[in-house]
Amino acid sequence: MAQLIIVRHGESTWNNENRFTGWVDVDLSPKGTEEAIAAGQALKALRPKVDVVYTSYLKRAIKTCNIILEQMDLLWMTQIKNWRLNERHYGGLQGLNKTEMAEKHGEAQVKIWRRSFDTPPPLVTEADPQHPRNDPRYQSFAAKDLPAGESLKDTIARFMPLWSGEIKDLLEKGKNVLIVAHGNSLRALIKELEGLSAEEIMEVNLPTGVPIIYELDSKLKVISKKFVGDEATVKAAMDKVANQGKAK
Amino acid sequence: MAQLIIVRHGESTWNNENRFTGWVDVDLSPKGTEEAIAAGQALKALRPKVDVVYTSYLKRAIKTCNIILEQMDLLWMTQIKNWRLNERHYGGLQGLNKTEMAEKHGEAQVKIWRRSFDTPPPLVTEADPQHPRNDPRYQSFAAKDLPAGESLKDTIARFMPLWSGEIKDLLEKGKNVLIVAHGNSLRALIKELEGLSAEEIMEVNLPTGVPIIYELDSKLKVISKKFVGDEATVKAAMDKVANQGKAK
Repeated sequence: MAQLIIVRHGESTWNNENRFTGWVDVDLSPKGTEEAIAAGQALKALRPKVDVVYTSYLKRAIKTCNIILEQMDLLWMTQIKNWRLNERHYGGLQGLNKTEMAEKHGEAQVKIWRRSFDTPPPLVTEADPQHPRNDPRYQSFAAKDLPAGESLKDTIARFMPLWSGEIKDLLEKGKNVLIVAHGNSLRALIKELEGLSAEEIMEVNLPTGVPIIYELDSKLKVISKKFVGDEATVKAAMDKVANQGKAK
Repeated sequence: MAQLIIVRHGESTWNNENRFTGWVDVDLSPKGTEEAIAAGQALKALRPKVDVVYTSYLKRAIKTCNIILEQMDLLWMTQIKNWRLNERHYGGLQGLNKTEMAEKHGEAQVKIWRRSFDTPPPLVTEADPQHPRNDPRYQSFAAKDLPAGESLKDTIARFMPLWSGEIKDLLEKGKNVLIVAHGNSLRALIKELEGLSAEEIMEVNLPTGVPIIYELDSKLKVISKKFVGDEATVKAAMDKVANQGKAK
């Protein structure tokens, strides 16, 4: 049996401005830092054994991960940082808020982007500063790997080689894995792990900074799934999930 | 040619209390955090290419490293955390300040410990909380590797397999390496790199939070060595080094 702990990063400075962030490397907000501390303390109280730690290339996840590890007295553990855990790349929508987007592209188009599983946002050109080829951290990557804008389906496809090639194997061997990442890269993981359909995964919205612990058997069947935090945090997370169900 | 950047962690909460810290996992002081930010900003201005990042298992080094990487926009780089970069283990002296030590062991003995290259401090027993076998992070280690107290000579011997087995090889291949570690583990590195005698390395005292950049040829001969920081910081570091020479 293995434990998989997943955490969506704490609130970023753009989350509360309602901007599409994607691969833009914005920082945690003060509230996001608080959420990360609370997540780390809640996990520490359970004293889970952690064997391997993953996070993304984006600082809001990395800093959440650092804070959680420090709270758990695990800061000494090496974190594997992998770009396949990055947030969905929102292409030409990155940096825009909902109002700006509606003005620029029209309400109807915005609705399609928000509700579709496989419609990508407007792609950025290679000359655009938002294209990953203009970011030093992706210089060594093959051009075909670098997204100019992703649908959720694309994000899942980009995540899967990390799952199949590394994480799945660790869990099957009984290793406990902690992953601190983003709303959509974690949706990719949840879809695979829980065997959800495209429609079902669209309904899943992870709360920021609330760890989920899965217990998995050796075939990665989910034995249990629980939110971790103080009573109010967990209740809020559970209610949100319940309402997501009702909204269908 | 390769660049090797070494940084001693910023001031810790025990540095200014004059306590022997060793493997005790104390935090950065506010001044130490400031030093780390300044070190990161000074390095960023030089825009050095960094290929591989190392730090120790101790949070004062890890947090200094995190801060430096963030300032350099390199937080996305995976840091290799290795216990061989830990500070010298001060055995039964850990946690004592100079006055307490003199009271407990006598001035003469204290002088020997401070000036000797190869006299270890009083060793702790395996039952002592200060023994690494009682710390979760060292549970998977072979008993023979875990120090109960080290002389500087012992610290160097413990560091060398990491140097010979990994770091040396990276530098010889032209990779640029950043290492954020501790006064004595970095002395081990400097002794090896600069070919210093036991007497000479005893005279070297690295300032906290001041990066040193070595340029090395493919045989790891030192081509240049410079301190990095604002004018006052670098002058203070250079003066300190000059005075160390005079004190011989």
